[in-house]
Amino acid sequence: MGHAPAADTPDLSTVRPDVDALLTAFLDRKTRLALGPETAPLSTELSRLLQSGKRLRPQLCVAGWHAGQGHGDTNGVLHMAAALELFQAFALIHDDVMDGSDLRRGRPTAHHALAAAYVAGGGRRSRAEAHGLSAAILLGDLALVWSDELLHNGLGGKALTRISPLMDTMRTELMYGQYMDLLSTDRLSDDVEAALRVVRYKTAKYTVEWPLRLGAVLAGATPGVLDACSAFAVPLGEAFQLRDDLLGVFGDPAETGKPVGDDIREGKATVLMALALRQATAAEDQLLRTLVGSPDLAEGDILRVRAVLERTNARQHVEEMITSRRDAALSVLDQAPLPAAATRALREIAQIATVRQA
Amino acid sequence: MGHAPAADTPDLSTVRPDVDALLTAFLDRKTRLALGPETAPLSTELSRLLQSGKRLRPQLCVAGWHAGQGHGDTNGVLHMAAALELFQAFALIHDDVMDGSDLRRGRPTAHHALAAAYVAGGGRRSRAEAHGLSAAILLGDLALVWSDELLHNGLGGKALTRISPLMDTMRTELMYGQYMDLLSTDRLSDDVEAALRVVRYKTAKYTVEWPLRLGAVLAGATPGVLDACSAFAVPLGEAFQLRDDLLGVFGDPAETGKPVGDDIREGKATVLMALALRQATAAEDQLLRTLVGSPDLAEGDILRVRAVLERTNARQHVEEMITSRRDAALSVLDQAPLPAAATRALREIAQIATVRQA
Repeated sequence: MGHAPAADTPDLSTVRPDVDALLTAFLDRKTRLALGPETAPLSTELSRLLQSGKRLRPQLCVAGWHAGQGHGDTNGVLHMAAALELFQAFALIHDDVMDGSDLRRGRPTAHHALAAAYVAGGGRRSRAEAHGLSAAILLGDLALVWSDELLHNGLGGKALTRISPLMDTMRTELMYGQYMDLLSTDRLSDDVEAALRVVRYKTAKYTVEWPLRLGAVLAGATPGVLDACSAFAVPLGEAFQLRDDLLGVFGDPAETGKPVGDDIREGKATVLMALALRQATAAEDQLLRTLVGSPDLAEGDILRVRAVLERTNARQHVEEMITSRRDAALSVLDQAPLPAAATRALREIAQIATVRQA
Repeated sequence: MGHAPAADTPDLSTVRPDVDALLTAFLDRKTRLALGPETAPLSTELSRLLQSGKRLRPQLCVAGWHAGQGHGDTNGVLHMAAALELFQAFALIHDDVMDGSDLRRGRPTAHHALAAAYVAGGGRRSRAEAHGLSAAILLGDLALVWSDELLHNGLGGKALTRISPLMDTMRTELMYGQYMDLLSTDRLSDDVEAALRVVRYKTAKYTVEWPLRLGAVLAGATPGVLDACSAFAVPLGEAFQLRDDLLGVFGDPAETGKPVGDDIREGKATVLMALALRQATAAEDQLLRTLVGSPDLAEGDILRVRAVLERTNARQHVEEMITSRRDAALSVLDQAPLPAAATRALREIAQIATVRQA
């Protein structure tokens, strides 16, 4: 793997091609080293999944590295950024198995794609679904261990020792957050604070704070810089998830790549839903508790749930929460001891993360 | 974590208490740091699963360290041994989800235990099964990342850099082996070589070769010692899995902790089954293809399958394969450049791995 040229000025537009080049080279090598043609569907499916995605975590990781005054050879931070993207692929694959989701990024989810590959390879149709789910569990596991391998490829022993405690905490927190999400699913509640707590662990820290801090720690950032990173990251991460919640209910499937109303069918206990329950009339409360979490909802049912989310002002309230959190994140940047170029990059990311359509 | 005293003479009987002490302290810390009482079932269930098990991989890891002339502080190698045990817990938990197994080590599998915890905590009975499976996927993920964290806790940057390539290869090979196993399940075949190939990746290398080599590499073993480790490990590992295949069909559930005939119901494409198909009459062939892989077999059906495995001499043939492989492994030790004490320990392990009842 050649070393990327030095880049002291953050230019987020190069993060995607740089990270994608690392991921492609890594997965191509894995495909060549597969134990025979029958194992090829695994790395092929992972490559397919990685073709899309926002690369938000890699961008935050590189921005964090610049915030921490990282300079010179970017090989290490780019490997870490690529590792974060592969780790996210792991999380998505297992998440889709757990939720039984059909679409991800506009294409069949990994378990469906691997079921189809099984049938194409002569497997029995009657076993295809079970096979796909099992194969996707293994593929998620592979993505997780490969994300570690990418780190080992790009970082020396000293850097590994420095970032491992953060990486370990990040991974544990995500699993705990996912578990809390699982426990709250299909148990509608008007407890906004509880829903926000899940958001904090499942998304805010994992998606924004840890990638940013990992980059900064790799660069050897001061405690003041690390504090600023966290103060910026947590509200922005919450805003990111709140936007996700709105997109999961009101988003355009052509943009989000997911079916309309998936979160409603799955019965996700979102902040949006908790706010609606707080303001719902008895009839609306009844309607939400009947429909949310039913896997076979028709489009008309989805529209009725949406109408309640509008009428109770829950949608508007979540929009306001997004705005206030984004503003809080941005105001941290006004006083943070960060290089001006890093601040510019973080402002850009804050915009992308909160105003997106997908 | 206190450092264990130096131990230059391998005494395998201390491996279990030493490793268990590390695992208990680690999981207790995780339970204390859990994000509130609702996440406690995860580390609790993992502790429960880790109460039993043969500790074969930890013993091999420590034996490998002694084979490589490791001496002095055993803290590092014990952390690696404990990490291997936690990694194995990950593999078992996901394996049981994929196979839909009910029992493991004589107790309900993790997905059943977590489903029960969900209902006990007020979750809906109608969601319990789906919840259990999802929670077990997460618990497996946690065990995997925690096994990494144990490594980070016990090894410095230099040691991590030295062992990471082996660890990465081991983990990838296991996933590929599991995937090949999945592909061959419910596709009975008389291809003994294909079945042995799955055995090699799924078990022989993962269970015996890598733990042994990891210990040896940590100790800084010479290439000659590493070659001897592999020459010993691969036949022994195959013998271990062949014993497992026999126990999966003929084992006493009171000893194995698994229901009778689980492998038959799951349709595992074992060496045992391939050998039987090679010698089967048309009627026996028909019987195996009808019964093997049917989830609802009665005890009478299991007995009929067993009778075919006996009549075709497949059972006897597998016993002979185990013996010849164990002998091959032991004869490697006769000429290997290993310390006498390490050789003694490996002979002991070879016995335990191939003559066991569970």
